[in-house]
Amino acid sequence: MSIVVVGTVAFDTVEAPWGRADRVIGGSATYFSLAASHFSPVKIVAVVGGDFCAEHRLILEDRGVDLEGLIVEADGKTFFWEGRYGEDPNERETLCTELNVFAEFRPELPPSYRSTRWLFLGNIDPDIQMNVLDQADARPFVGCDTMNFWIERKPESLSRLLRRVDVLFVNDSEARDLSGKSNLVRAAKEILEMGPRAVVIKKGEHGAFLFTRESRFFAPAYPLGEVFDPTGAGDSFAGGFMGYLASAPAADERHLRRAMIYGTITGSFACESFSVERLRGLTDAHIATRFGELVDLVHIELD
Amino acid sequence: MSIVVVGTVAFDTVEAPWGRADRVIGGSATYFSLAASHFSPVKIVAVVGGDFCAEHRLILEDRGVDLEGLIVEADGKTFFWEGRYGEDPNERETLCTELNVFAEFRPELPPSYRSTRWLFLGNIDPDIQMNVLDQADARPFVGCDTMNFWIERKPESLSRLLRRVDVLFVNDSEARDLSGKSNLVRAAKEILEMGPRAVVIKKGEHGAFLFTRESRFFAPAYPLGEVFDPTGAGDSFAGGFMGYLASAPAADERHLRRAMIYGTITGSFACESFSVERLRGLTDAHIATRFGELVDLVHIELD
Repeated sequence: MSIVVVGTVAFDTVEAPWGRADRVIGGSATYFSLAASHFSPVKIVAVVGGDFCAEHRLILEDRGVDLEGLIVEADGKTFFWEGRYGEDPNERETLCTELNVFAEFRPELPPSYRSTRWLFLGNIDPDIQMNVLDQADARPFVGCDTMNFWIERKPESLSRLLRRVDVLFVNDSEARDLSGKSNLVRAAKEILEMGPRAVVIKKGEHGAFLFTRESRFFAPAYPLGEVFDPTGAGDSFAGGFMGYLASAPAADERHLRRAMIYGTITGSFACESFSVERLRGLTDAHIATRFGELVDLVHIELD
Repeated sequence: MSIVVVGTVAFDTVEAPWGRADRVIGGSATYFSLAASHFSPVKIVAVVGGDFCAEHRLILEDRGVDLEGLIVEADGKTFFWEGRYGEDPNERETLCTELNVFAEFRPELPPSYRSTRWLFLGNIDPDIQMNVLDQADARPFVGCDTMNFWIERKPESLSRLLRRVDVLFVNDSEARDLSGKSNLVRAAKEILEMGPRAVVIKKGEHGAFLFTRESRFFAPAYPLGEVFDPTGAGDSFAGGFMGYLASAPAADERHLRRAMIYGTITGSFACESFSVERLRGLTDAHIATRFGELVDLVHIELD
C-alpha cells in the first residue's frame, strides 16, 4: 500500500574531515521517500523553491515517488541546512539553517492522498503534524518523528498528537527528554503511556530498540567499517521501517520486528555516502544481503 | 573442565546517589570466579591480607571455588578500591586505590593448577600475565583482560602476550587505544592481527561484539530498568563467557556465540546489586530465563 510522507525537502551542505558536499539534496521527506520506495509507493508532501530543478525532481521521480503534493514556490528558495562533522561522526555542528519557503509552509494533503492508510509525519511543529493528520479521511497508521526542540517548546501539542500516533521514532536523548527518565527501559514505558502503540528508540551506531506494551525488541546497528555521512540516517531508518510495514500483511509483532531490521538497513546505507547517492543506487539484492548479515550477526543456534 | 583465574581479590567501597557499600568484597578474580562457577569449577590465584576473614572466604567457598592458590599475607592488608558513581552509571570516579599486598604479588600456579586447560588472565601487568602463562604445563585456552594503563605503558609486553591469547576482552575505549582505530570494526581487525583468535569488545549498556577472522557476532545488553552498581560487570562478563566455554563441547563459533550471551547475563546480574550479592544468589533458573529473554530480544521470524 502507498504511504504519505510530510516533511522537508532541502539542500544540505555537509563538511567532514574527509570531504565536502555543497548544496546537495537532503531533507527528512527526501531520505524517507527514497528509503521507503524500496518497499512501497510513496507520496510526498513538502515545499521547495525555484532553485529546485528538474534534476532534483528526477532523483525522486526515478524511484517512483508521487510529487503531486510537492509545492513549488518559484519566487522563494528551498530550505537550506549546513553542518559539519568531526572525526567522530557523532559530533555534528549546525553551521546554518535557512528555513526559506519552509517557514510559512502549511502542508495540505492533495485529495488523491487523503484516503491513505499509511502516514509518516516528519519532524516539524506538532501543531502542523496534527493538522495534517486531521486532513486524512480514515484513520491511517501513523508514524511520527519529533525532536528536543518541540519536546521543550510545545509539550502540550506534542502530547495531544502522541495519543493519535501508532509508532513514535525518537533517538535516545529525545526519549530521555520526552519521558524525564534517563534509563531507556523506563523512558519507553513512560512514552507508551502517552499514547503510541510502539516507540522506536534509535541509538545510532549502538542500534535501536522497539518497545510496545507487550514486548521489546533490539535491532543491532549494521557494523560499518566507515561512517561517511550520517545525515538523514534517522529519516532513512523511518522510511525503511514504514515502507516495509506498509507492504506487510499486518502491523503485528512479527512484522514490526522485521521493519526494525529494514529500517536499520536503509539507515546504514544512508551513512555510506554524502546526500542520497547510496540510497539511489540501492537494489533489492543489496537490501536482502544486508538483511541476511544482520540476522546472522545476532544468530544463536539453540540446542 | 575447570578453569584457573589469576587476578585481584579486593575490598571495594562504592558510593552512588542511591546508596553506599563499605569495604565489600570485590576484585576481578572474585567477580570472575562467582560468574564462572555457574558453569565450570574455578581455581583462583590471588593474594589477600590478614583483614580477609572466614566470612569472605565463605563467599567463594560457597560456590565451590578452589582457594589453594589464594595466598594470605597475614601481616598485610587486602587490595582496596574506592569509587563513586554519578546519576549516570557510566560516570565513575576512582577516589582511592591502595594496592597493599597486591603491590608485590607474583602469582604462582600451585602444582595442582598447572595442567589446566582453561586460563583467564585478569587485568594485571602483562609481564606478570606472561609469567603465569609460562607456568602452565600444556598450552591452555587463554582468555585475557587488559586496560588502557598497560596499553600505554607496556605495549611491547602486551604485544608479546597477545600472540599467545585466544580471546582478548576489552571495552570500546581500550579497543580504540590498542588499535589506534576509532571505528570498532577496523579496531577489531587490527587487534586480531596482533594474535588473538577472537576479540570481545564490550560496550556496557550498548552490548558487546565478538570478532574472529571469519565472523562477527553481536550480543545485545540485557535491558535493565535500573543499573544499581556496574562495578565488576566486565569481570563477570568474562567469567560467564569463559566458564560456559570451558563446559562446552568445543570452542567453536557456535559455542563462542553462546558464551557471549552467558557473559552478557552474568554481567547484567553483577549490575543489580552492590558487590557480588546478586551473583551469589543466582540459580541456573535465573540464568536460563535471561538466556531466553535475550534470544527473544533479537529474534526475527524468517519466512
